[in-house]
Amino acid sequence: MEIITSIEQIREISENIRKNGQSLAMVPTMGCLHEGHKSLIDKARKENDKLIVSIFVNPMQFGPDEDYDNYPRDLEADSKLCQNAGVDYIFHPKADEMYPNSFSTYVEPCKQMTDILCGISRPGHFRGVCTVLAKFFSIIRPNRAYFGQKDAQQLAIVKRMVKDLNLNVEITGCPIIREEDGLAKSSRNLYLNEDERKAASILRKSILLGLKEIDAGQKSSQKVLDTIKSNIEKEKLAKIDYVEILDFDTFERVDDIQGNILIALAVYIGKTRLIDNIVI
Amino acid sequence: MEIITSIEQIREISENIRKNGQSLAMVPTMGCLHEGHKSLIDKARKENDKLIVSIFVNPMQFGPDEDYDNYPRDLEADSKLCQNAGVDYIFHPKADEMYPNSFSTYVEPCKQMTDILCGISRPGHFRGVCTVLAKFFSIIRPNRAYFGQKDAQQLAIVKRMVKDLNLNVEITGCPIIREEDGLAKSSRNLYLNEDERKAASILRKSILLGLKEIDAGQKSSQKVLDTIKSNIEKEKLAKIDYVEILDFDTFERVDDIQGNILIALAVYIGKTRLIDNIVI
Repeated sequence: MEIITSIEQIREISENIRKNGQSLAMVPTMGCLHEGHKSLIDKARKENDKLIVSIFVNPMQFGPDEDYDNYPRDLEADSKLCQNAGVDYIFHPKADEMYPNSFSTYVEPCKQMTDILCGISRPGHFRGVCTVLAKFFSIIRPNRAYFGQKDAQQLAIVKRMVKDLNLNVEITGCPIIREEDGLAKSSRNLYLNEDERKAASILRKSILLGLKEIDAGQKSSQKVLDTIKSNIEKEKLAKIDYVEILDFDTFERVDDIQGNILIALAVYIGKTRLIDNIVI
Repeated sequence: MEIITSIEQIREISENIRKNGQSLAMVPTMGCLHEGHKSLIDKARKENDKLIVSIFVNPMQFGPDEDYDNYPRDLEADSKLCQNAGVDYIFHPKADEMYPNSFSTYVEPCKQMTDILCGISRPGHFRGVCTVLAKFFSIIRPNRAYFGQKDAQQLAIVKRMVKDLNLNVEITGCPIIREEDGLAKSSRNLYLNEDERKAASILRKSILLGLKEIDAGQKSSQKVLDTIKSNIEKEKLAKIDYVEILDFDTFERVDDIQGNILIALAVYIGKTRLIDNIVI
């Protein structure tokens, strides 16, 4: 396995892979890899001849008051995980390799899909995500790219971008990987102290409570939202950013629960913002 | 020569050209081809193995009050010109092939370069240009693409986009082709009646007058702008949209004429908006 930091070099490597008629996969990450990432890497490894994992903490997708500087970084551990998982290349560019001083062109994603959920409390976040991915896809031109379903909104927006800009990469969403108590694996879980870590299971538990109500026949989104919210509010360390029930295709809020439905939430546990979701 | 209307088909054709190890050029146009386009096509033809000319009147780069519906279209004449010039393929998609109903992702170009010149009177124009070109480049992935220097701002913005989004296509700017009286060739010249056609030569004449002043030692942008503007104002059919003197690299207005300078103007002749420029 090689770690590549230059755009020119990873482009050349990717071109040679394609010239050899081999299929090429990419798993874009911000590093600090956990079992969630590992599941993407494993799937990508199985389904393709060659595999590039990008590790890039993308400054453009962080707001000015967010955790860019403190976002956990551990290239050594990441490299070991990748090596053991059979990754061929890590692409690990510096920020100024991706964004030289003159940088000023952006990919602006679907407004309808960004004016809700994480897009409200993180303005510009998905613009940053789409811009860096458009760049990666243009440099590496993978046949397939793998994303976690945990970032359901990101996955849907990226799929739309790829379709709209004709980017010719197959986007695969992979199931959420969870801790034993149901907490979705996330690099940001590292921020949690012991009490917060215990409290954090409230996200999944509350979603499951809502799901139970739906399974019992509840059709009203508002009722289910109330159940989920009031359950989260019982947890003193938790502060709701949003809980939403949406049509998964259009990302519009729905009154009645029918068809393809996304229940998504973001909750602060102490200072740490965590997200989770379920598609039903 | 073949005329291709489907994205899937032109993508396959382009892929096969690359697989054969041949170089591929693209000349993006809105059709109604004139000698300006012809000069791009001839240069592209000489420098590459295969050549695709796109003919697509891109709705996204027209404002709501602009001339999208009336923009001249003549596929038959365009096909003849392309055939005679040795073009291999015309890519001529329908608008809904490029922009299906759900379309909602945009490429937002450099704000500093769009908040001036044509970007002021045509808000959203360069977003439309960049979005459609990013799509074309992703579908066709040409080695080289050719643009006229007449649209100097477009050329500079497209170069910046290609660099910022790592699009891996070489952008070549080609000299302005002119009528005998100096009027820059443009599809919109067809809109001019006889009197307007005569009046339209005022654009080039006024630029040359400014240039003469600079050659004689004038260093003040304001003085040169005054000369150009007052000369245009002598023409009764002309109405100035803008006359600007900019640093060609940064697109910032300059007080003193030194370094790489762009003199650019847009002038209405009757209802027809014409542009011209010179780089010194």
